[in-house]
Amino acid sequence: MTQLSLPTFDDVVAAAKRIEGVAHRTPVMTSRTVNEAFGAEVFFKCENLQRMGAFKFRGAFNALSKFTEEQRRRGVVAFSSGNHAQAVALSARLLNMPATIVMPHDAPEMKVAATRGYGGNVVIYDRYKEDREQIGRDLAARHGLTLIPPYDHPDVMAGQGTAAKELFEEVGPLDAFFVPLGGGGLLSGSALVTRALSPDCKLYAVEPEAGNDGQQSFRSGNIVHIDTPRTIADGAQTQHLGHYTFAIIRRDVDDVLTASDAELIDCMRFFAARMKTIVEPTGCLGFAAARQMKDQLKGKRVGVLISGGNVDIQRFAELLLSN
Amino acid sequence: MTQLSLPTFDDVVAAAKRIEGVAHRTPVMTSRTVNEAFGAEVFFKCENLQRMGAFKFRGAFNALSKFTEEQRRRGVVAFSSGNHAQAVALSARLLNMPATIVMPHDAPEMKVAATRGYGGNVVIYDRYKEDREQIGRDLAARHGLTLIPPYDHPDVMAGQGTAAKELFEEVGPLDAFFVPLGGGGLLSGSALVTRALSPDCKLYAVEPEAGNDGQQSFRSGNIVHIDTPRTIADGAQTQHLGHYTFAIIRRDVDDVLTASDAELIDCMRFFAARMKTIVEPTGCLGFAAARQMKDQLKGKRVGVLISGGNVDIQRFAELLLSN
Repeated sequence: MTQLSLPTFDDVVAAAKRIEGVAHRTPVMTSRTVNEAFGAEVFFKCENLQRMGAFKFRGAFNALSKFTEEQRRRGVVAFSSGNHAQAVALSARLLNMPATIVMPHDAPEMKVAATRGYGGNVVIYDRYKEDREQIGRDLAARHGLTLIPPYDHPDVMAGQGTAAKELFEEVGPLDAFFVPLGGGGLLSGSALVTRALSPDCKLYAVEPEAGNDGQQSFRSGNIVHIDTPRTIADGAQTQHLGHYTFAIIRRDVDDVLTASDAELIDCMRFFAARMKTIVEPTGCLGFAAARQMKDQLKGKRVGVLISGGNVDIQRFAELLLSN
Repeated sequence: MTQLSLPTFDDVVAAAKRIEGVAHRTPVMTSRTVNEAFGAEVFFKCENLQRMGAFKFRGAFNALSKFTEEQRRRGVVAFSSGNHAQAVALSARLLNMPATIVMPHDAPEMKVAATRGYGGNVVIYDRYKEDREQIGRDLAARHGLTLIPPYDHPDVMAGQGTAAKELFEEVGPLDAFFVPLGGGGLLSGSALVTRALSPDCKLYAVEPEAGNDGQQSFRSGNIVHIDTPRTIADGAQTQHLGHYTFAIIRRDVDDVLTASDAELIDCMRFFAARMKTIVEPTGCLGFAAARQMKDQLKGKRVGVLISGGNVDIQRFAELLLSN
C-alpha cells in the first residue's frame, strides 16, 4: 500500500485564503433555550447559510481553484448525492469552466434543479444499481475531464476544514465538537483544524444509525463497506469512508456516534421552531448526538456543525408533520 | 381634540440605549437570488431572529423599563394577538414584575404556550365577540395594573423604531423601505428613524389585503375602523390604527400597500427554500409588496423589515404544502 500524502492544517489555512470573499463566512448562532437545557454553552456553526446552502462549496471551490489552465479548459466531472454537485457546478461557473455532474435518480428535486441552474450538465444514475464512481471515471477518461470526488481528495478535505477554522477563530477553544459524517470530507478537515486550534477538544463524528459504516470502520481499524443506507440523511448515504479521510479520522477523532431518523426530525423541528432556521436532515446529525450526551456536557463549551440546509420545501414540510 | 405628544427620533435613540445588551442586534441578511431577480440591492432586517421571535420585545422592554417602583410592584397588563403578549411577559420577567396577558381564543398555540412559559398570567377572550381593550382596562382598574397597549403608546413606538435604526446604521441610506403594518407601532417607530437617518427614502407600509384599514385611513385622512379581518397574517389583524401611530403615519409614510394571503405564503416558501429562514405570515408583508413593485426598484437600495418568525411549526408546514 502506497503512503498517502495527507493534507495538513497548513492546507486548510491556504484553502481559507483561496475561498475568502467567495464563500460566506457563515454566522455562529446560539440559543438561550439550548444553553439552559444543556447547562452548557453551545455554538452552532451555520453552514446551512453557506453559498448554495451547504459547506460543500468550500471544498469544491478550493479544489477547482487549483486546476491548471488545461484542466479548466476541459472541465470538471463530479458524482454526488446533491450538495457536492451544486458546489462543483457553482464553483465551475465562477471559475468559467464546464461541469458534468453525475447524480442519483432519487436526489432531491431541488438539488437537481439547483445544479442545472448553476449551468451543470447533469447525468442521472440509479443509486441502488449503478456505480457512480465508475460512471464518473468513464466520463473523465472519455472527455479528458478532471474528476473531483465528493470527499476523498486532499483539496476537498482542506476546503471543508475552513468552516471549523472560522468557528474556533470566532469562539475560541471548545471542550467538545460534533460534526456530521458521510464520506468524511467535512470531518477530516474539521479534525485537522481541531487538533491545531483546540487540541484538547473531544471531536465526535455523527452518522445515520442506518449507515454506521464509519463507526464500524473506526472501531475495527479497517474501512468497512455497506449497502447504500436508507435514511432521510441523504447527504450521509455513503457506503464507505475514503482512504484519505479514514487515515485522518483514525488518527484525530475521539469517537463515532450515530443518530436515528426520528432524532433528526426532532432536531429539524427544534431548529425551525426555536431558532427559525431550516436545516436538512444530514445537517442535524451533530445536534442529535450532542442531545444524547447532554448530561456529560454540563458546564462545557460545545461546538455543533450544521452542515447544510438543502431540503425540498415540500419534503421539509412533510417531515415536520410526520410522527 | 387634545394635542398628542408624539414620540421623536430622540426617543428612539433613548430606547436603543435601554434595550442594549437585552434585545438582540438582529442580523441583516441579503440574498444573491433576490438581488439578481430585482436588479437591486435588498437588505432584510431579520426580526424573526429577535428575542422571543419578533420585534415586539423592543417596544415592550422599553415601555416597562420606564415604570416607577410602584408600577413595577403592581405589574403590567397587556392585550395582544400574540407577539406583544410574549414580549410583555418576557420583559416583565426580566424586570421582575407580574404580567397579566389578555389573548384571543384563536391565538397560535405556540404563542400562548410561550407567554405562559415566560411566567405570564394568560386571560383568554373571544376575538370576534369581546372587546380586548375593555377587558384590559377593567383588569387595570380593578388591580391597579399599568396597561401597555400593543402599539398606540409613545414608549412602545419608540422601542419598535430601534430595529430600523440598526438597519440604517448598518447599511446606510436607502431608496425604499417596506415595513409591515398592523396597528402601526413598528411602522411609526420606523418612520421616525427613516425621516431622521434617510430622509429621501420612500417609506411603504404593507398590510393584509383582507384588512386594509390602514390604507383607507391613510387615503381618507381619518382613522377607519373595520371588523377583525380574516387573514393568515395574525400579527396584523388589527381593526384600526392608533391615535399616536396614525399621526406619524399620515405625516411620514409615503404610501400604504396591501398583500394577499397567497402572496404571503409564496414569500414564506421563498424565505424557507432560498434563505433557510422561517418567517411568520405577517413578517412576509414587506417582501410581498417589494415584489409587486420590483420593476420600479431596479438599481435601488431597498430595505425590507421581516417583523417576526413566530408561527406554529405544524401550521407553517401546512401553509408550505397548501396551494
